[in-house]
Amino acid sequence: MTDRVVRVLETFDADRTVQTAAQIGRRARLPSSTAQRLVADLVEAGLLERDDENRVRLGLRLWELALRGSLALRLRQVALPHMERVQARIREHTQLAVLEQEEALFLERLSHPQAGANITRVAGRLPLHASSAGLVLLAHAPEEVRERVLARPLRALSPETVTDAAQIRSALVRIRREGHVIAPGSIEQVSTGVAVPVRDGHGGPVIAALAVVLPREAPTGGAIEELRLASHGIEAALAASRP
Amino acid sequence: MTDRVVRVLETFDADRTVQTAAQIGRRARLPSSTAQRLVADLVEAGLLERDDENRVRLGLRLWELALRGSLALRLRQVALPHMERVQARIREHTQLAVLEQEEALFLERLSHPQAGANITRVAGRLPLHASSAGLVLLAHAPEEVRERVLARPLRALSPETVTDAAQIRSALVRIRREGHVIAPGSIEQVSTGVAVPVRDGHGGPVIAALAVVLPREAPTGGAIEELRLASHGIEAALAASRP
Repeated sequence: MTDRVVRVLETFDADRTVQTAAQIGRRARLPSSTAQRLVADLVEAGLLERDDENRVRLGLRLWELALRGSLALRLRQVALPHMERVQARIREHTQLAVLEQEEALFLERLSHPQAGANITRVAGRLPLHASSAGLVLLAHAPEEVRERVLARPLRALSPETVTDAAQIRSALVRIRREGHVIAPGSIEQVSTGVAVPVRDGHGGPVIAALAVVLPREAPTGGAIEELRLASHGIEAALAASRP
Repeated sequence: MTDRVVRVLETFDADRTVQTAAQIGRRARLPSSTAQRLVADLVEAGLLERDDENRVRLGLRLWELALRGSLALRLRQVALPHMERVQARIREHTQLAVLEQEEALFLERLSHPQAGANITRVAGRLPLHASSAGLVLLAHAPEEVRERVLARPLRALSPETVTDAAQIRSALVRIRREGHVIAPGSIEQVSTGVAVPVRDGHGGPVIAALAVVLPREAPTGGAIEELRLASHGIEAALAASRP
């Protein structure tokens, strides 16, 4: 039953924010009567909202419930001023990602109006082996997660995505040694992602990755330096705010 | 059943991010066996996560589901660069609220490290009659919402909160005429809230309120001017991004 609620909620995404109960039923592979009843229940509970044409969309109540008791909110709230400083100096996309179900889930993205191409969305995901943030998360993931991810067929998002497990494995060793990654063209050929780890307090476990998406040929040194400063700032703020 | 899922999720908040199934059961007023089973289902679905000590917290999957298909995300994402500009110039708390179940629900808050007191939280709520953002939302709410809110006993959050319905009604007329509100001391006596409406495109319905929380005796003119500019910027961006 809980599973059905999730299946209904999963039918919504950025390109499908408003749906009829019938559309939801088809997409969630639920019998029409079940879908109608579930949608009515979810509207009643405030997790969905009905519009004038009897279509439904996700309710703000769901977002509120998800956010107000969430540890991710604390991380994001602590990280935001530091991300703003990176963005003000580098003037490109600055983003924060965490490891979630073996993918990189993006908690926040700040974008400069003149910044280049970037497919990342807040609450969107990217494969760990392809995105710069994902590679940092993979480098510091528990070994069994790393092995599971690298044992699967690795999808190329661009002609330059590295999909060879042995090559990725060497890159991960380098990331752990150097404390950053530079991933040119692995998501989009016009961009280079750079990322650093964020630890839960100084010397703690890696809990997130902070990344900047630069135009392909831009120098990366300044961005890496800013990301390091921001990451240390977040770590200090997390340590200071611990209850 | 959906109702029970919501009751479980509602037991989490900023001060209670990790709980045992027994605690959840007590707070949600569910029999212990029901709570155990629901928690197990929700963990299975990824909406809750279990830690090493068998306690649970809200899963990022819930946040992700709530955000990725949400219209509020579009508003927030469009508003963010404009809010950053306000915050960079005014250097106080800048926040964005929408009307939700007859309260002001805060979608975003940017805070300057040196800014003054502010009780608002992202995904937190404040009463419409007390907060500056709430008063703007109430001024532009459908008449039946306005009458319902004003017919109820109005709670004082500080000794200066206006709780007299007739006085609030005059303030709402003024807000509609002048296009902004100045609310000194109505939430905390050390602060003054100022807010303006945000419309869904130029001349469209009011969909949000943009506010700044200033120290009590600070001049308000500059903040109102910046909020107006930002609000127009958001309205133009919303109009331009309409699918």
